[in-house]
Order: sequence, then structure tokens, then C-alpha cells
Amino acid sequence: MALDLTESMGPNSLREERSKVEFDVEAMKVVWAGGIEHKNMADKIRAIVTNDPVFEKVSRPQQDRKTLLKNSLKKAAHAWKIIQEKKLTEQEARLLRYYIDEPNYTDLHWGMFIPAIKGQATEEQQKKWLPLAYRMSIIGCYAQTELGHGSNVQGLETEAVFDPSTDEFVMHSPTLTSTKWWPGGLGKASTHAMVYARLITDGKDYGVHAFIAQIRSLEDHEPLPGVTVGDIGVKFGNGGYNTMDNGLLRFDHVRIPRENLLMRLASVTKEGKYIKSGYPKQIGYGAMVSVRSYIVKDASDILSRAVTIATRYSAVRRQFGGGEGNPETQVIDYKSQQSRLFPMLASAYAFRFVGEWMGHLYDDVMARLSVNDFSTLPEVHACTAGLKSLTTSYTSKSIEECRMLCGGHGYLCDSGLPELYAAYVPACTYEGDNVILLFQVARFLMKSLSQVGMGKKPTGEAAYLGNIQGLATKNCGIKQGGEWMNYEAVVEAFQARAARLSGACALKLNKAPDVEAAFEEYSTDLADAAQAHCQLIIVDKFAEKMKSAFPGQGTRQILEVLFFVYSLDLINKHAAEFLSTGYLTSKQLSLAKDQLRSCFRKVRPNAVGLVDAFGHTDHYLGSILGRYDGDVYPNLYKAAWNNALNESTVTEGYEAYIRPVIKNQTQNSHRR
Amino acid sequence: MALDLTESMGPNSLREERSKVEFDVEAMKVVWAGGIEHKNMADKIRAIVTNDPVFEKVSRPQQDRKTLLKNSLKKAAHAWKIIQEKKLTEQEARLLRYYIDEPNYTDLHWGMFIPAIKGQATEEQQKKWLPLAYRMSIIGCYAQTELGHGSNVQGLETEAVFDPSTDEFVMHSPTLTSTKWWPGGLGKASTHAMVYARLITDGKDYGVHAFIAQIRSLEDHEPLPGVTVGDIGVKFGNGGYNTMDNGLLRFDHVRIPRENLLMRLASVTKEGKYIKSGYPKQIGYGAMVSVRSYIVKDASDILSRAVTIATRYSAVRRQFGGGEGNPETQVIDYKSQQSRLFPMLASAYAFRFVGEWMGHLYDDVMARLSVNDFSTLPEVHACTAGLKSLTTSYTSKSIEECRMLCGGHGYLCDSGLPELYAAYVPACTYEGDNVILLFQVARFLMKSLSQVGMGKKPTGEAAYLGNIQGLATKNCGIKQGGEWMNYEAVVEAFQARAARLSGACALKLNKAPDVEAAFEEYSTDLADAAQAHCQLIIVDKFAEKMKSAFPGQGTRQILEVLFFVYSLDLINKHAAEFLSTGYLTSKQLSLAKDQLRSCFRKVRPNAVGLVDAFGHTDHYLGSILGRYDGDVYPNLYKAAWNNALNESTVTEGYEAYIRPVIKNQTQNSHRR
Ligand SMILES: Cc1cc2nc3c(=O)[nH]c(=O)nc-3n(C[C@H](O)[C@H](O)[C@H](O)COP(=O)(O)OP(=O)(O)OC[C@H]3O[C@@H](n4cnc5c(N)ncnc54)[C@H](O)[C@@H]3O)c2cc1C
Ligand SMILES: Cc1cc2nc3c(=O)[nH]c(=O)nc-3n(C[C@H](O)[C@H](O)[C@H](O)COP(=O)(O)OP(=O)(O)OC[C@H]3O[C@@H](n4cnc5c(N)ncnc54)[C@H](O)[C@@H]3O)c2cc1C
Ligand SMILES: [Ca+2]
Repeated sequence: MALDLTESMGPNSLREERSKVEFDVEAMKVVWAGGIEHKNMADKIRAIVTNDPVFEKVSRPQQDRKTLLKNSLKKAAHAWKIIQEKKLTEQEARLLRYYIDEPNYTDLHWGMFIPAIKGQATEEQQKKWLPLAYRMSIIGCYAQTELGHGSNVQGLETEAVFDPSTDEFVMHSPTLTSTKWWPGGLGKASTHAMVYARLITDGKDYGVHAFIAQIRSLEDHEPLPGVTVGDIGVKFGNGGYNTMDNGLLRFDHVRIPRENLLMRLASVTKEGKYIKSGYPKQIGYGAMVSVRSYIVKDASDILSRAVTIATRYSAVRRQFGGGEGNPETQVIDYKSQQSRLFPMLASAYAFRFVGEWMGHLYDDVMARLSVNDFSTLPEVHACTAGLKSLTTSYTSKSIEECRMLCGGHGYLCDSGLPELYAAYVPACTYEGDNVILLFQVARFLMKSLSQVGMGKKPTGEAAYLGNIQGLATKNCGIKQGGEWMNYEAVVEAFQARAARLSGACALKLNKAPDVEAAFEEYSTDLADAAQAHCQLIIVDKFAEKMKSAFPGQGTRQILEVLFFVYSLDLINKHAAEFLSTGYLTSKQLSLAKDQLRSCFRKVRPNAVGLVDAFGHTDHYLGSILGRYDGDVYPNLYKAAWNNALNESTVTEGYEAYIRPVIKNQTQNSHRR
Repeated sequence: MALDLTESMGPNSLREERSKVEFDVEAMKVVWAGGIEHKNMADKIRAIVTNDPVFEKVSRPQQDRKTLLKNSLKKAAHAWKIIQEKKLTEQEARLLRYYIDEPNYTDLHWGMFIPAIKGQATEEQQKKWLPLAYRMSIIGCYAQTELGHGSNVQGLETEAVFDPSTDEFVMHSPTLTSTKWWPGGLGKASTHAMVYARLITDGKDYGVHAFIAQIRSLEDHEPLPGVTVGDIGVKFGNGGYNTMDNGLLRFDHVRIPRENLLMRLASVTKEGKYIKSGYPKQIGYGAMVSVRSYIVKDASDILSRAVTIATRYSAVRRQFGGGEGNPETQVIDYKSQQSRLFPMLASAYAFRFVGEWMGHLYDDVMARLSVNDFSTLPEVHACTAGLKSLTTSYTSKSIEECRMLCGGHGYLCDSGLPELYAAYVPACTYEGDNVILLFQVARFLMKSLSQVGMGKKPTGEAAYLGNIQGLATKNCGIKQGGEWMNYEAVVEAFQARAARLSGACALKLNKAPDVEAAFEEYSTDLADAAQAHCQLIIVDKFAEKMKSAFPGQGTRQILEVLFFVYSLDLINKHAAEFLSTGYLTSKQLSLAKDQLRSCFRKVRPNAVGLVDAFGHTDHYLGSILGRYDGDVYPNLYKAAWNNALNESTVTEGYEAYIRPVIKNQTQNSHRR
């Protein structure tokens, strides 16, 4: 009897969901993309990726490491061919790599190696290296971290000792812990590395500087003499980040030309004299803001992807209820499912808008830098560090939460979620450990407050701290639940909480004899204050976004609901801070919770529409549970038969390891 | 120049840590193991596993799925041989399988198939099946979940229609969604399955019952006629749970003898008449308590394993500080690291003790069942469901937290943590979805409170609800920080919070016209109340444990510190509930935080000793970062060279996919 694989009710469920949506999904796609041009570009690139069999990715979890790497090299080469043939712009090329959705050496070449050259090389050096890199005649990676040092960059041990007799630097790895360790693309692909090493000349150590070192032959790809290079091993997840060749690198007195020191900030003369260029080192901040705004936008993409899968599947999945011929309840109808899912949905939009704003911030920073205005940089630095930390931590946790919302089936790689998590979660660690980044924010906040004490007004997103007195004394005035549905009331609540937490920390530090020791002692309070500050920024930017015009019917209304879901959920989750600082009463908190529940009711009919608006293709989602058409069960069933263990009905190992057990022949039974 | 791989300072760091420990680690090992006999047994079994090359496991992340399964079958056969040759007891055999630390079909055979027979088969049936199963002449799995139904067991669709003409049941999978999906060991190994199917006789559907169905030939292991069986595919993680053959199963009118219905609770006569046995169905509760007490103990083991890795590595890892010839700061000295790590360390002990108590609870339940006393079962059911939910959720999250505490290196499979997480996290889903379990607790709490209203006293761990009036009105009296260091004060705080949260929910439900709708509406509040109830149990059992005698110098003192770390950390994390219910003031909360910080200081010198006391072998840890000897860096370096990508210096795929990029030959350049 042939099994009918067309009987699934998933497609009907999603069709019905889509018919209930109360807003213009196509218009929302434009909002999400940040404008029609962005949407068109994304559509164009998505179509390229989706229709090209080379970019197939669902088989990854079944591949061994060598196959993963080889296929990834193949995809990179194929993408490069497309980029050239279709003459894609830089932005389009970035999108193409993004939608291929597979970490590989090109991420580092374009995302770290080239920007580092732009930021730290002199114009002359740029003229030499950039064309090579743009043509990919060389492949570069970013070799900063060592086995012994990651967060503490100043502690790096690799040495570059200048030898005036040959006008060269001698690169050397003096200890085991000085081995470069982690750089992506280093292990197998790169020909060159941006190496961070201690510059030593004339016996003096000038600290860590950037050098370009060739590490493999451009003819046969063999490591150059004195260079030891390899892959550091298997990482979290099956496919995951294992398509990337994170590498190790050791130098045994390898000589590179003096000119390979990137000399924009400092140079060494032929005679070995170290000279600062006088160029402000803040010049590199622009690149940092740009990198971080991409990270935050990526977070919104990844989060929205996980949420798409969980939302669609929650509408397809039915469990309990029903009876008498009625279908069972869609699990998305359970309030507990909603209270876990909808805040993540709202967060995806919130992160999107704050990422968009960071793009503008970048323009502002660049404009200021061009006239040597560094005044906003400390604030921008803290703000972007904090937003990187918050959005990547939240997104990582949320992928797992989305997976759990899918019950058992979420645990299959076919759900797309396990590999998404494994590949994404290192974003909490690279580009700055998320905990350490929060301390940077906290330091900025403490400094700002002490400057407020001296009459200096904080700028940008920290401006509210100028009003700390007011914020510390005026408590929430809400008496009725409906009053929570008010942008100013919400933003003020976040300002008051953030200001009070920072203020309390500042008080403790002020009282302490040793400020550094006190900073250590109260570090968790300081991290809480930093988090409150960054959540305020996101809430504030979302509220600001709501002041703009939106295309399409119903878009503004539902985004408004999402704003309140985002903010009231945060108030609920961090209620202790709102209560203990005295800003909210338990009664007001309870009113906020009621409003949150009523917002969930408004989201419910629009949930599938809101994830459709992300515009993710089935290729990008890589998930049977999240398929656009909702046809989950037949496809799970078919996919199961594609797995290697089902190649034979009787398993390999049966004769050797199962039959003897069943037949009681594991012991040498004759001898007994 | 040969690289010196002996220069690492890790071993020195751990030696120094061990010299600072203030309590008797060997005595604590006995406490952890739950007595000297348990410790001796564990030592004996650990030695068997550690010294046998067949049980090697660190190469798993590099193996493909087929190799993983085959090796796992090999290990199972080898273990079986050892069990027989060494005549291990049932408990020793379980420990052996546990320390082999690799999910495979024997987990389900021994852990689910056999217990189900014991619980649901008549004595006659047991006489037939148990000897076969004990000898492993058959291999059984537990086939409950279907593609379409997991949590809702009553919704299962597989049919067993009785045919009196042949005295057989006809097993059939009528729909795609009725396909059995997930059962461990089903995909490739099992010969038999405990199948949950709707019993239909004489046209009437009697709901879901358990049947034993043979699915593969005992001669050649081929699926029997009418049986479709296979593996469902790759799951989360590289090795992870992929050594297990979670399977799918379909029946096409497969006939099994009538006697294969497990008939302890109900039977069908030759004529097709359905007869209830009159046997109380609660009889199965004993098995459930036993399974859950193992799950909680396993949680403490897994948690302690992750904590061991993070603690030892945090003592080895140094980052920042130092200078002038001093080594850098051990990251375990950072307060933020401590505030993340030490509560997990304390939780491992807390879970251990509550798991131990559940063992006694099991004995109590069995004694009562033997005299048909079912009075305590509802409370026991709720309590064990909640403890399963809480401990598995916390342990899963904590493994990831431990991994993050290890910075970038935690992301390497060599850390042992990625695979530990991937293999453990489904414990949140199987044996009951953790969210749904909390609702079961909540239902029990609401019922208990309504009974309190009617004058009935709650029993066991819910007894405090009998005093809800008192608990709802008397607030915390603490005025000075030191007063927090008091068992009664802490337990009372947890009682007050739990009682108040439950009470508030009960009030809402009482007011509602439709209680079920209100239960749905306030489900998150109800889940919070359930969680508070279960945390109280853990705190209470830890406090109770502290009343017993402890061997060895200093053990009691440090366990006392851990009790306060565990409980005050929970108060801090759930502060909103303590504040909003009015039990605590912000001032009292702040005093609790101060005490918590001072407890961290007391844990610090003992941290490595406390993880050493878990007694985990390096084999079990499977982690280079967590090695007993602390020799991290040289071993990370050596391990990297064992990975497949380093078999050649020039990577596979270079000629095809890298060289053309570098040489600008990706396009057919001649044609342009
Ligand atoms: C997938 C991946 C890709 C990467 N790619 C690259 C790359 O291309 N190039 C490159 O150069 N590097 C790369 N890295 C390395 C990455 O940048 C580092 O892992 C990161 O900077 C964290 O440093 P660490 O690993 O040394 O962590 P550590 O600094 O060792 O952190 C360990 C623990 O100590 C804590 N800690 C450390 N210092 C303090 C402090 N002062 N106060 C409080 N707590 C502290 C941390 O919070 C953490 O919990 C990559 C890493 C990963 C995982
Ligand atoms: C690794 C692994 C091994 C397994 N081994 C076995 C085995 O050996 N034998 C076997 O029979 N099964 C096995 N299972 C299946 C497992 O028991 C089920 O996955 C589990 O019972 C959860 O059911 P589900 O997957 O249908 O989730 P669902 O019930 O579909 O849950 C999906 C979502 O809906 C929510 N939800 C569902 N109902 C409600 C409700 N009433 N109220 C609120 N929310 C609700 C859940 O909380 C969840 O968020 C295994 C699963 C895994 C992952
Ligand atoms: Ca693999």
C-alpha cells in the first residue's frame, strides 16, 4: 500500500493564517528591507542563490569535515565567478555571500583583511595591497588571537623584530601560547595574513602592531619556509561553522619586508627608528561602527529566520484539543507558546530598526571624522559595543528557544535550527566577548556620570543621563492599564531604570577607596546597568522609527503593537530592576503584564504575516519545519529516507555487533 | 626549531589551587557519591571504561554518521561482553553504560522497554518476555511518539484492530502522521518495539494501549513483512545524539498475537471482549518516580561535568592584569566569572541532594503502593514532574554558559562542551516537554489550594500550602545582612514566594467564569508559580540535607556556603517575584546580594576542590580544557594536528577551487 504523501494539513493551515492577516505584507517587506531599493536588491540576489544547485546546503549535516571544506571552497569560487560575470556591486557581492549562508574564508578576506588595510595602511600601501585583494590575487585573513590571548589583545606574544641590516621584520612565535589560533580562513585557504605582533626595534617593545605576512606560496599553496600553519579542529555543530578553516599559525624567524608594517599610525625607518604618524588613532572607529552595524543587522536577520521557522511550524503543528471531527489546536494558540514566541518576533523588528539607525550613525561618524571632530566617539563606541553584545546574546538564546518551541522535531537538523545555532553562537565571542563589551559600556556610563557631576552634558544616546536628578526622583504615574500604551511613558520608564541603576553604581564607586577594586566587586551590577542602557537605546530607536511614515495599510498599527510587545516584555523580564529602583509599583507592573497579554492577542492573527514580511526564501531558511508552504510532514518523511543510515535495511555492523548479542555469542561461549 | 610542548603553566595553576582547598576532598567525594559503597562502585566501573580503548570517544566529532552508529554498536556489544564476563550487577551495568557516555539502543532497551514490560505486563507475560529481554535475545525499544503526536499521547493514531477470526491484532498506520517517529534504537537496532496504539475491538476504540510487536527477523535482521522501518536523520551536534538510531516505523496491516497486548490493566478475550483488570492504574507511578529520580541525578552529573570543565579552565586561563613579571590574572578571579560559575557549581550539589532524596521518595511510594495507599501520588507526581523540568532546563542552559565561560576555546569540540550540550539538551523535550510538565505542577497546586479552602491538608512537599494564610501575610523580617545566613529564613522566603504566586493564580482562576480559559490566559503566571514551588523543594531538601552528618574536615562548612550561594542566587535572579509579592523590600534584597558576594569569596579558594570532589575521570569529561592535570595548551595544540584537514599541507580542493580564484581563472577567461 503506497503511502499518501499529499494528505498533510499544513498548507491549509498556513493558507488560512495568511487570509487572516490584517496588514499589507508586501509593504512590510519594504519596511523590513529598509526601502524598496534594498528589497529589490535582496530579491535579485536571493534568486541567484536559490536557483543555483552549487549553493545547495541542506546536505551539510551529513558531510564529513573534508567534504564540508571542499564544498565551501567550491561555493566561494562559484560565487566569485558570478560576482565577476554579473558585475555585482560590492554591496550585492556581500549580499550574495550572505545568502549563500555558509561561513568561509571570503568572510574574513572581505570583512576583516580588506577593512584592516583600509583603516591602517598608508595610501601608498593601500595602492599596493588593495588591488591584489580586490582581485583576489591574494587571500587574506585576520590573525590577531593567539592560543594564550584573545580578549587581552595587548598581551599578544608574537614578535616582529626589526633587522636594519636587511630592512626586514623577523616574525617569530616565541612560545606555544603565542601560536595564532582561531583566525578564520587561515587554516587552509589564505595566502596572506594580517598578523598582529609586538613591534620590537632597537631592543624596545612598542606593543602590538599590524603586519601583512605572506604565509603560503602563490604558486603551489605550500606554506612558506618557517611557517607552520593548519586547521585547529572540529567546532560546535555538524555543519555549523565547520565549513570554515579556523587556523593556527607559527612563525620560525620568518622575514618580511619593512614595508609590510601597516604604517598609517606609526612607522619604522630604515634605520629602525619608531615614529608615530600623528594621525589620530580614532580614525579606525568608523570601520568599527560599520562592522558592528552589520553585526546587529545580521542579528535581526538570524533572529527573524529562527522566528519564521518557529512561527510557521507553530501554526502547522496541532496538539491537544479538537475532538468531534475538529482539528486539534494549533500550538501557536497556546498562550505559553505566544509568550515565548512573540517577544522574539518583536525583537527581530526592534533589532532591525536599531541596525538601520546604526547605519546612519556610521555616516554621522564618518562626517565628523573628516573634520577631526572626535567628540561623539566615546558615546558611539559604548553604544555600538553594547548593541553588539545585547543583540548577539539575545539572538543566540532565541534560536534555541525557537527550536524548543518546535518540540522534538526541532532537534532534527532538518528543522534548520540546530545548525543555525551552532554557526551563529560564536558571534557572542568573536568581535569582543559579550560580557567584556558590557563592561566597556559600564565604564563609559560611570565616566559620563562623573562628568555630569562636573557639569558636562552627555551626548547622543547617553543624553538622558544629563537629567539623572529628574529621572531618579519622578516615579511612574500610570494608574490604568491603557496608559502603558504610550511611547513617552515607556521610554521614560527605560530611562529611569537605566539612570537609577547607573546612578546606584556610581554611588558605590564614589564611596570606594579603590575604584578599580570596586568596579570589580560590583561588576555584575555594572553589567546590569550597561544592559539597561542598551535596552533603552533599542526601545528609543524603535519609538523614533514609529514617528516615520510607513507604506501600506495596517503596517503602522501592527508595528505599534510590536513596539509594546518588545518593551513591555522587557519590563516584565527585568521587573526586579524597575521595582527595586522604586520606579514601578507591583500594581503598575501587573497592569503592564495585562497590556502585554492583550498585545499578544493582537499579534496572533498577524504572526504568519509578520514572518512572511521578512521575505526569507526556503533556501535561506533551510528548514522543513519553516517551509513557506507549510508542507511539513511529507517532507520530513521524505528527507528521512535520504539519510545515509537508510541506504540499507540491515545496518552495517549487524553481523559483527548485533547478531552476536542476540545470539548470545559475545563471549567466547565455547570456552565456558 | 622544535616547539617546546612542556612549558604550559596550567599544571602549576591547578596544583596551587589544590593546595589552597580548605576541606577534605576525599570525604566530599563520598558525600557526592551518596555513600562509600556508591563511590567504590563508581570507581570500579570508571576504571573499566577509562582503560578500555574500545570506549575511546574523543574522535566522535570527526566521524560520519555511519561510523558513529557502527562504533556505538561495537561499544554496546563490548559492554555487554564485559557485563557478562565480570558478572556485573544490574546497577553496575547501568553505571557502565552511563560512563561509556554514548547514547545507543541499550538505553531504551534497559531504560524503557524492560520497565514498560514490568509495569504493564501480567505476570505470565513477564515470564515470557523478561528473560528474553534480560538475555538480550531480543532488542526492544519504546515506540510511543508519532510524526503527528508527541505531548498528546491520547491523540496517537496507530491502530491495533482485533481480529477474533485469527485471535490476532492487526497493527496498522493509517496516516502519514501516524508514523512512529523518534523512538531511540528503533531505526537500526531493535528487533521488537513496545508500540503504543489504539486498541479497537468490535468496532469500538478503547484508546491507547501498549503492544509488543516484533519488527525485524531474529535470523537476518530484515524488517518483517508489512513493516517499514528506518532512521529519521541527523540530529543536533556532530557526535551528540547521532550515535543513536532514532527511528521511524510504519505498519501495513501487520498481525501480532492477541497475547502481545500488555494486559495488566486491561485485556481482550478471544471473543474480542475488552475487560479492565481492576488493577489500579497508579501502579505505574513507581516506575515513573524511579525514571525521574535518575533524570535528576543525571542532571547533577552532567551539570557537574560542565562545571568541572569551566572551573578548571578558569583557573588555568589567564587574561589581563599581571605585568612586571607577574602572571596575568586567572579568569576565575574575575567577579563576573564567579557570579556566573559558582551558582552552577552550587546547583550541581543541590540537584545531587534532591536526586538522592527522590530515591528515598521512590522507596516510600513503593511501600505505599504495596498496601494500596495512593494518597501521596498526586503530590509525588507533580513534584517529580517539576523537578525533571527544572533540573534538565537549568542543566542545558548551564552547559552553554560554561562553554561561554571558556571564551573561544569552548567552541572547539576539544573542549567537550559542544557535544555535551547537543547530546544532553533533548532531555528538555523527551520524557515530557518541560513547559507542559510545569503546567501539570500548576494544576496540582491549584487543586491543592482549592482543597485547602475545603479544609484538606496538602501532603509532602506541598504541606506548606496548608499555611498559605500565614505565609501570605508575614513579610521578611531581616534587617541585617548576616540574618540571611539562616536556613529557616531562606526556606521561609521560598515558601512565602511560592505560596503567594500560587495564591494569586488561584484568585484569578476563582474569579473567572471559565476556569480552563483562565488557566490558558494566565499560563505564564501559573508556570512561574510551579517553578517557585519546585525551587522551594530543592532549597528545602538541601536545607534538610544539611541537618545530617558529614564526613571529613571542612565539608559541612563549604556545603553550607554552597547552600547560600544556591538559594541567594535564586532570590536574586527571581527578585521580581520576591519583591512584587511584597515579601521582600529592595533593601532586604540588596542585603541578600551582599551576602551572596561574600559567599563567592568563600567559594573561590575551594572551587577546584569542589569540582575535584565530583570524581569525574578525564575519559568521562572528554575535555582538553577540563583535564585534571590542567595541561591545556600543549594538548590543544597536539589535538589540532589530529584533525583530518591537517593530513596534507595543501588542502583538497586547492587546484579546483582556490588556484583558479588566485590566478583569476574562475571565468573562462579565454572566451572574454
Ligand atoms: C568561531 C570563531 C571565529 C573567530 N575568528 C577569529 C578571527 O578571524 N581572527 C582572530 O584574530 N580571532 C578570531 N576568533 C577569536 C576571538 O576573537 C576570541 O575568541 C575572543 O576575542 C575571545 O577571547 P578568548 O577566546 O581569549 O576569551 P578569554 O578572554 O580567554 O575569555 C574567557 C573568559 O574569561 C572572561 N574574562 C576575560 N577577561 C576578563 C576580564 N577582564 N573581566 C572579566 N572577565 C574576563 C571572559 O568573559 C570569558 O568568560 C574567533 C573565535 C571564534 C570562536
Ligand atoms: C532525542 C529524542 C529522543 C526521543 N526518544 C523517544 C523514544 O525513545 N520513544 C518515544 O516514543 N518518543 C521519543 N521522543 C519523542 C519525545 O517524547 C517527544 O518529542 C516529546 O514528547 C515532545 O512532543 P512533541 O515533539 O510532539 O512536541 P509538541 O507537543 O509538538 O510541542 C511543540 C510545542 O507546543 C507546545 N505545546 C504542546 N502542547 C501544548 C499545550 N497543551 N499547552 C501549551 N503548549 C503546548 C510545547 O510546549 C512545544 O513548545 C524523543 C525525542 C527526542 C528529541
Ligand atoms: Ca559530522
